[in-house]
Amino acid sequence: MSDKVRLAPIGLGRWARVLGRGAQRGDVIELASCFSRSAEKRAAYQEEFGVPKAAATLEELLSDDEVEGVLITTPNDTHRDLIVASLEAGKAVYTDKPIAHTLEHAIDIRNAVERSGGIFAVGHSARRLSGSRVMKQWIDDGTLGDVSLVEANFSNERGLELTTDTWRWYADKSPGGTFIQLGVHHADNLQYLLGPVAQVSAHARRLYTKSEVPDAVMAILEFESGSLGYIGCGWASPGIYQMRAQGTKANLMYDLDFTHWDESHQADEWSTLVSQGYGDMTRRPVELPATDMFREQLDEFALAIRGEAEVEVGIDAAIRALAIVRAALESSAQNGKAVEIGPLLDQVGVAS
Amino acid sequence: MSDKVRLAPIGLGRWARVLGRGAQRGDVIELASCFSRSAEKRAAYQEEFGVPKAAATLEELLSDDEVEGVLITTPNDTHRDLIVASLEAGKAVYTDKPIAHTLEHAIDIRNAVERSGGIFAVGHSARRLSGSRVMKQWIDDGTLGDVSLVEANFSNERGLELTTDTWRWYADKSPGGTFIQLGVHHADNLQYLLGPVAQVSAHARRLYTKSEVPDAVMAILEFESGSLGYIGCGWASPGIYQMRAQGTKANLMYDLDFTHWDESHQADEWSTLVSQGYGDMTRRPVELPATDMFREQLDEFALAIRGEAEVEVGIDAAIRALAIVRAALESSAQNGKAVEIGPLLDQVGVAS
Repeated sequence: MSDKVRLAPIGLGRWARVLGRGAQRGDVIELASCFSRSAEKRAAYQEEFGVPKAAATLEELLSDDEVEGVLITTPNDTHRDLIVASLEAGKAVYTDKPIAHTLEHAIDIRNAVERSGGIFAVGHSARRLSGSRVMKQWIDDGTLGDVSLVEANFSNERGLELTTDTWRWYADKSPGGTFIQLGVHHADNLQYLLGPVAQVSAHARRLYTKSEVPDAVMAILEFESGSLGYIGCGWASPGIYQMRAQGTKANLMYDLDFTHWDESHQADEWSTLVSQGYGDMTRRPVELPATDMFREQLDEFALAIRGEAEVEVGIDAAIRALAIVRAALESSAQNGKAVEIGPLLDQVGVAS
Repeated sequence: MSDKVRLAPIGLGRWARVLGRGAQRGDVIELASCFSRSAEKRAAYQEEFGVPKAAATLEELLSDDEVEGVLITTPNDTHRDLIVASLEAGKAVYTDKPIAHTLEHAIDIRNAVERSGGIFAVGHSARRLSGSRVMKQWIDDGTLGDVSLVEANFSNERGLELTTDTWRWYADKSPGGTFIQLGVHHADNLQYLLGPVAQVSAHARRLYTKSEVPDAVMAILEFESGSLGYIGCGWASPGIYQMRAQGTKANLMYDLDFTHWDESHQADEWSTLVSQGYGDMTRRPVELPATDMFREQLDEFALAIRGEAEVEVGIDAAIRALAIVRAALESSAQNGKAVEIGPLLDQVGVAS
């Protein structure tokens, strides 16, 4: 047995393959087993990634002493039960974003994390993109000055392609549609940049998707600092991934061609970051140090299991991102009236 | 006397000079006179633009039979009285945006326009930018498909530079700050693209300006068609002028480097328009036919006086743009709850 950290994906769909490729670009992780209810998917995943074994049931996977941690990429509404069972079996848990689809589920997950004391990480990978990292640095070191506005958009064509046999079609499994799937990334990014959000006003609409969920969502965030943030999310157009921060000393504009999102080691090549300083008549390109968000988050999770790293996005940050989504949906139901985040966090036991 | 249309600026500050240069780039207009309360400004304007005479009082200007129309660039709260007096004196009126700072003033202006039957134009120049024109064409001819989201930002550093001796400092003269000065352009642009707005949710904040007015405003518009729109406006950062439309068949992204705004015959050289089609892995630059928004709107106004053109942005379109501003401020006072546009338009007698 190698000294690599032995992880096992749970759920073997498209996203488990993106993460599998990310893990195998590094040299920290060994995919030691895997689990899906479908024997066909297990066989295909083993073949594609050279995984030596597969578990036919969840119980079999969780009782396998060789498996140190699991990578959960199943539908949002199944996260809770899988996370709780995995933590109780002594496994470290990485789950894809969002942490859950409801705050009620998030409460149960938070309790299980506290009870077990296990390693727990949530895949808010987007804050690891080079553009987010540089933006954070420029805000923290004062290069941008005082930031009044931040704007972000994450959109793609998914809502036009959904069919009734996919879980994302259904409002009870994927409430908020594009906003819980894509917007939750920016809910994390913007709080990573500017700290906690105090309240959210939003409008969510179902326009051109045939599914049950919104394909057009706009939300205005007010940060505790007083700054304003905007998140736009569509599910009925070609892809967009963009962020902009406006400061008293400079602006920063980050743009990633979404069509290259999945292969995160190449994302920086399809990205631009541009600054414009106060009084400048021209803009300047900003260098983007190479990153690989999927590899990096999985390496960090694996090393944390061995006590050699700390998880950057754990339970509280993930719940803060989910709270933005839930507040946005509640605000939309109240025709845009702002919904406070504090009471939602209190429900889940996160300090507001 | 030449056969050119004889116009006279009222208010001879920075903007009258931008418009003067625009008018003189064309060959339709003659600046026949001018008026400001300041003799010094009158002399300087005559000198810079070769204007043969100046009026020492408004009455003198309005009783000058040689003057066919006036160009009003005075503070927002003075528009009404100047417009009404000019129309009643039989002059055609061009006024800079916004048409007025309150709906009450807009009612009086609308009544004067109806009573006089005179030519009346409002300087919502931004819809004449090449990017707006191409975007409109792509929406109307179906190239974008069904549009779900449009986003726009117009920002600059003005709020950081205001002093107590400028009218823009004061909430009673410039309510909404950056939103009535800059946002009103996009309020017109977005309705030009997608038709009337039904309701507006917004948050306006005073963050880093020392003045009385907001320097950070975000608004979400719901169009009667169901599409969502966003306008972001800052007054505490370097300049931004941007628009994006997301359709089921393609996206269009328009960006103009604001630092080159004033010299509108060069604006297209500092602009980019980029499209990304459904399923495209790459983006394509879109050609921007040359425009000159300030020259074009003034030429059109002048030719309309002679019956040789129609005013594109008249009383109703300008009031629709102002109504967005007023609704946004009202919504912000109600913590984001959407405010309907219909009742505001009804107040002013515009069909909703």
